[in-house]
Amino acid sequence: MRIKPNVPMAVQAAELLRNRLRRDYVNGGRLPGENVIASELGVSRGTVRQALAILEREGVILRQQGTGTFANPNVLGINARVDMAYEFTQLIEAAGFEAAIDTVEVRREAASADLAQRLGLATGDPVLTIHKIFLASGQRAIYVVEQLPTALVQSEYAESELTHPIFDFLDQRCHQRVDYIVSEIVPCVADQGLAEYLGIEPGQPILKFSEVFYSTSNAPLVLATVYFRDPLIRFHALRQLTTVT
Amino acid sequence: MRIKPNVPMAVQAAELLRNRLRRDYVNGGRLPGENVIASELGVSRGTVRQALAILEREGVILRQQGTGTFANPNVLGINARVDMAYEFTQLIEAAGFEAAIDTVEVRREAASADLAQRLGLATGDPVLTIHKIFLASGQRAIYVVEQLPTALVQSEYAESELTHPIFDFLDQRCHQRVDYIVSEIVPCVADQGLAEYLGIEPGQPILKFSEVFYSTSNAPLVLATVYFRDPLIRFHALRQLTTVT
Repeated sequence: MRIKPNVPMAVQAAELLRNRLRRDYVNGGRLPGENVIASELGVSRGTVRQALAILEREGVILRQQGTGTFANPNVLGINARVDMAYEFTQLIEAAGFEAAIDTVEVRREAASADLAQRLGLATGDPVLTIHKIFLASGQRAIYVVEQLPTALVQSEYAESELTHPIFDFLDQRCHQRVDYIVSEIVPCVADQGLAEYLGIEPGQPILKFSEVFYSTSNAPLVLATVYFRDPLIRFHALRQLTTVT
Repeated sequence: MRIKPNVPMAVQAAELLRNRLRRDYVNGGRLPGENVIASELGVSRGTVRQALAILEREGVILRQQGTGTFANPNVLGINARVDMAYEFTQLIEAAGFEAAIDTVEVRREAASADLAQRLGLATGDPVLTIHKIFLASGQRAIYVVEQLPTALVQSEYAESELTHPIFDFLDQRCHQRVDYIVSEIVPCVADQGLAEYLGIEPGQPILKFSEVFYSTSNAPLVLATVYFRDPLIRFHALRQLTTVT
């Protein structure tokens, strides 16, 4: 198993296992025992147990008392979950397309009253505004506007770094890690501008997420406004009703 | 603490605690110790510990090593979460309105090919189709179409029972419990019919959830198609990036 620094072993094992399940268990089936999985992944049994707990919480596997652990085809088939972390290129690839970034435009602006309120700034404080358009096999699929306070930036950077996922920039240039994201889900009708950005007709329905990223010390870092072309990128959510521990 | 049968103590304690936090800690603040909470709620310390684990997973509280457990105002303020269980009347009340059911219409129909495929039926199998409109302080807010196979129904029922939440009907008349719900999130533009159901103008954006309810034995039970009037009912999602255990 490849080891990423900063990412707990159990999370990495869960990711590996999730990908295997998607490949080999897409129609369901019973998983091998923890020992077998541990030796296949080259990790400890304790790590496997934690990884299985993560996947159970995600609904990807089901444990049935006395009979074992099963892949859940009803959840495994979903490729974009609104309640799980993702990067835009991953989303596009998971939907079966080739991902690319089309346009990136960076502006230095003054925070509007609304932005200031959402990020805990004063109106007029300087912010970096990054516009990106993501392509799915050549079609415009996602239009993103990310805004972050200039004051967060701790070191010199090249403009090209802003084309990378914002998580990397926050980590490397702002020494900040994102702990969680609160996303407001808003249905929209494309106006002329949005229609052009996404290569669709005005009047088409669009899904908009208005997101605030919070740091590990619970401070707002970024406001992201994201428009997804429907049905090219379509989200799912999972609600578990009876799970407790 | 009031005791509901079938609902684990920790889940009930989490609900009580969540409501208290929403009332008393909406701007944040440090929680009292487990012992204090336990005696306030009249439950064991073990139950409090489990309840806190549930609330931590929901993002409602944050644990900071060495300093204690804190209410998270960024999450506490959210009243409709796409990743958490809800009933429509609860959603409406949480948004600050008075909830009522306006219309209920029940039809006996034959499953379409699409419905049959989604619920694991044969095309033409008999289904119950329940249309409901929910009001938020008198305004039409949610339009729901629930479809379930007639074959699920195990005992006689009065038509009026279908006005209650479908969970109750599934429990009492079908002896089925919902384990989880997979929800597809679709932005829509209201056509003439939808606009009339929701009391809005055609062309307005609408959020649609297309949902399959799965039983504790992982069988599909119900297809629900739900239209939410925006911005009257607006959903949020929480994505946690660094949480593991």
